[in-house]
Amino acid sequence: MPFSALWELTVFRLAKRLKAVIFDQLLFDTIMMKKTLLLGLLSCAFVFFAQAQADQDAFYIRKIYDNTLTNGQCHNWLQYLTREIGGRLAGSPQAAAAVEYTRQVMEEMNLDTVWLQPVMVPHWERGEPEQVRIVNSLKVGTVELNALALGNSVGTGPMGRTAEVVEVKTLEAVDSLGEQLRGKIVFFNDPMDPTELNTFAAYGKAAGQRVYGASRASQYGAVGALVRSLTTRIDDIPHTGVTVYQDGATPIPAIAISTKAAELLSRLLQEEPVQVFIRNTSRMLPDKLSYNVIGEIRGSEKPEDLILVGGHLDSWDVGTGAHDDGSGCVHALEVMHQIKQLGYEPKRTIRCVMFMNEENGLRGGRAYWEWSNEESEYHLAAIESDRGGFSPRGFTADGHEDIFNKKFKRVLDWLPLLEPYDLSFEKGGSGADISGLRSQKGLLFGLKPDSQRYFDYHHTPIDAPDVVNKRELELGAAAMTSLVYLLDKYGTE
Amino acid sequence: MPFSALWELTVFRLAKRLKAVIFDQLLFDTIMMKKTLLLGLLSCAFVFFAQAQADQDAFYIRKIYDNTLTNGQCHNWLQYLTREIGGRLAGSPQAAAAVEYTRQVMEEMNLDTVWLQPVMVPHWERGEPEQVRIVNSLKVGTVELNALALGNSVGTGPMGRTAEVVEVKTLEAVDSLGEQLRGKIVFFNDPMDPTELNTFAAYGKAAGQRVYGASRASQYGAVGALVRSLTTRIDDIPHTGVTVYQDGATPIPAIAISTKAAELLSRLLQEEPVQVFIRNTSRMLPDKLSYNVIGEIRGSEKPEDLILVGGHLDSWDVGTGAHDDGSGCVHALEVMHQIKQLGYEPKRTIRCVMFMNEENGLRGGRAYWEWSNEESEYHLAAIESDRGGFSPRGFTADGHEDIFNKKFKRVLDWLPLLEPYDLSFEKGGSGADISGLRSQKGLLFGLKPDSQRYFDYHHTPIDAPDVVNKRELELGAAAMTSLVYLLDKYGTE
Repeated sequence: MPFSALWELTVFRLAKRLKAVIFDQLLFDTIMMKKTLLLGLLSCAFVFFAQAQADQDAFYIRKIYDNTLTNGQCHNWLQYLTREIGGRLAGSPQAAAAVEYTRQVMEEMNLDTVWLQPVMVPHWERGEPEQVRIVNSLKVGTVELNALALGNSVGTGPMGRTAEVVEVKTLEAVDSLGEQLRGKIVFFNDPMDPTELNTFAAYGKAAGQRVYGASRASQYGAVGALVRSLTTRIDDIPHTGVTVYQDGATPIPAIAISTKAAELLSRLLQEEPVQVFIRNTSRMLPDKLSYNVIGEIRGSEKPEDLILVGGHLDSWDVGTGAHDDGSGCVHALEVMHQIKQLGYEPKRTIRCVMFMNEENGLRGGRAYWEWSNEESEYHLAAIESDRGGFSPRGFTADGHEDIFNKKFKRVLDWLPLLEPYDLSFEKGGSGADISGLRSQKGLLFGLKPDSQRYFDYHHTPIDAPDVVNKRELELGAAAMTSLVYLLDKYGTE
Repeated sequence: MPFSALWELTVFRLAKRLKAVIFDQLLFDTIMMKKTLLLGLLSCAFVFFAQAQADQDAFYIRKIYDNTLTNGQCHNWLQYLTREIGGRLAGSPQAAAAVEYTRQVMEEMNLDTVWLQPVMVPHWERGEPEQVRIVNSLKVGTVELNALALGNSVGTGPMGRTAEVVEVKTLEAVDSLGEQLRGKIVFFNDPMDPTELNTFAAYGKAAGQRVYGASRASQYGAVGALVRSLTTRIDDIPHTGVTVYQDGATPIPAIAISTKAAELLSRLLQEEPVQVFIRNTSRMLPDKLSYNVIGEIRGSEKPEDLILVGGHLDSWDVGTGAHDDGSGCVHALEVMHQIKQLGYEPKRTIRCVMFMNEENGLRGGRAYWEWSNEESEYHLAAIESDRGGFSPRGFTADGHEDIFNKKFKRVLDWLPLLEPYDLSFEKGGSGADISGLRSQKGLLFGLKPDSQRYFDYHHTPIDAPDVVNKRELELGAAAMTSLVYLLDKYGTE
């Protein structure tokens, strides 16, 4: 019969404290009372049982790490996804290839079930290479700026357009300028804060301009938006990423320029009016049928308790989505692979999901959680990996306020088992694709790798397999597998 | 007047505990006794003073990080050292250029003193590109293996030599085989253990074959040594590194081959005898005059207490020593730069040392500590950075057994100030160049960055500036500066 984790841990701790006392007592009691002897022996049994459990867990987690670092396949799968398939924008032939590839990988693992969940996704095409050009500056003449249209952007039309540039640092500044923006190209130039130790925090503070800048500016008649690339690096590489045309906004072209280009443009604007020519032929086509790829190992005792691991299969079209989110996908696949390789038979159902269209629509995540909620499923836990394949530092955890504190406390009990692997837990967002599972009142986790390098590559042509380190990638998969092992064994009650 | 750190911390802790009690008490005492009121007020003053100190420290460390991440120069200096100067083997023109460059950098910082400490260094030359070739294998015919002579190796002579290969996994196996090795080339093929989480631990276990393999084999008449490259990666890149001819050993050529070459050779040896042709024209020339580069900021109150920061300026000739140890050098320079930029006036003397010839002789380190010991100097602390420019995780600490536990305990008191920056302390080796300062009974630290990628690049042509991340590098410098600040302010007594 299985013991609950809580009970085991409570007994373990209590027993540890009592151990010394009981042993001293025993000698006396043996002479005095047979009853007490019995009690003492039972307590000893508990002590040894709890210790044996902790040892077994430590041993098993060590086994997971050893096997992942010697027989892990995640790095090979990532090579295929990135080098053989490439950028996997939703609706593209590459995205379809990735669906088929990961389905084959799951099938070859002999999971209990592998299926495709249909989902209609936006089908955006970048079109011809973007052009952004400073025209007729008194200071620098004509200068081409490195640029990438933002995802979901409309095009300028084949002739492009030329307009004067107005620089703003915040979305609020757009409202202040108001009608002065009519006919202008608005240049959003709020840099990512390099002093934030966690680069995701800096990204969070600066991403609004990319997502909502074009919408906001178009309200006042602007004819285009240029956006400073979201990275702390000063270089020539433009970073794409989604822009969202909010309800009622007239869509205007939105284009990212490299941080070096942004610095140049900003300096020029301090000295003279600057006109910029922009041209892109991006367009949104009708939705396309695509799929989430799902595989699971059915639990032997509580199959209705689901533990999900996942990443998103789509990526931007530029680069090959090696960190974002090829790494997350192969992390999740490796969890399943390790469970099978080690012959671990989970009590609960372990489900692996490759979500489609996180980047420019979140349709896969939405389809999944809507279906799951309708089916009244219970995700005891869901772990998304969508922060790259760098050295893991632990997990962020989130969940419905009704249960979070209580369940998170259980999870913290496992720290002694995870700290030897440099893993910790902190409260924080999990992952976009699993966010809609919150109402099921399980725990939502995000793998938290070291964040320093992520935004060097994020949404760029250089997010390619050569910047993913094999050991770091494997350690992320081992961290996720270890957490899955503990969640499966002990639950969170 | 300055307060000692210990006293401040003791008061702070005591005061914290007393705070609640005292405040309750006060109301009563105000009525009862004027004396007690005075005592209470004094205690409150202590509480606020200690809290103010802790706040001030947190504020200053935040300032160090902010300034390093926005105005740090270490990445620029590294570009110069690696791209403009290149590989800096002791005795080479590039090593001389590096001495002059870092002296200029220190002089431009307006340190109180900058000087060169002369040191005679070995002058080894690799010579023509090495050749290692499997000849006339029945299975694979003739195959070139990627190879690099080990540092300090003798050459084969211009005609090279051909001999049968004998594979061993350990140094002890050499003794077992004994006379069977006469006339043979001994192939040391003990792989680095990929399951060690800290790659330096795996390196430590496997490095003996590279350092002592040739010596050991030559005792039994072997005519050459091939050594598997020290990396967990399986790739085509050979890793050089020092070999040591122990007293009395006949020097024989010692050459590293890539891990892929090692795997091929090992597989072949299971099936057939294998002859290998080796050729290298490496040679040791007479010692050359070189220098440690030293700069210091003199302490305002206790100038006789030295706090050293350093790295080693030499590197291997292949690659450009970007991680090993260009990063360590610019870390140390950045500490000085931050102190000057922030206008911090240290109470103790802060000394920055660029050590020469760590890689194949340790002559710089030795010259430095012999001189310092003779001068009866006292290094209150020395911090070496020689584990690469990756995301810092903290410091290893070491020291003379008479003082270590006591002083290390003081340092642990600073953890609350450093943990927000992901830094911790652990007992462990510091750095080769500072190891001889142990007798001065100060603390010896080694910066401890994430270790996962280090041995992908270590001692190879790909240890180049493109694999050093600017933010990670800057964070290492900020970590060292913060520790220097605390050591200077509080000492270790």
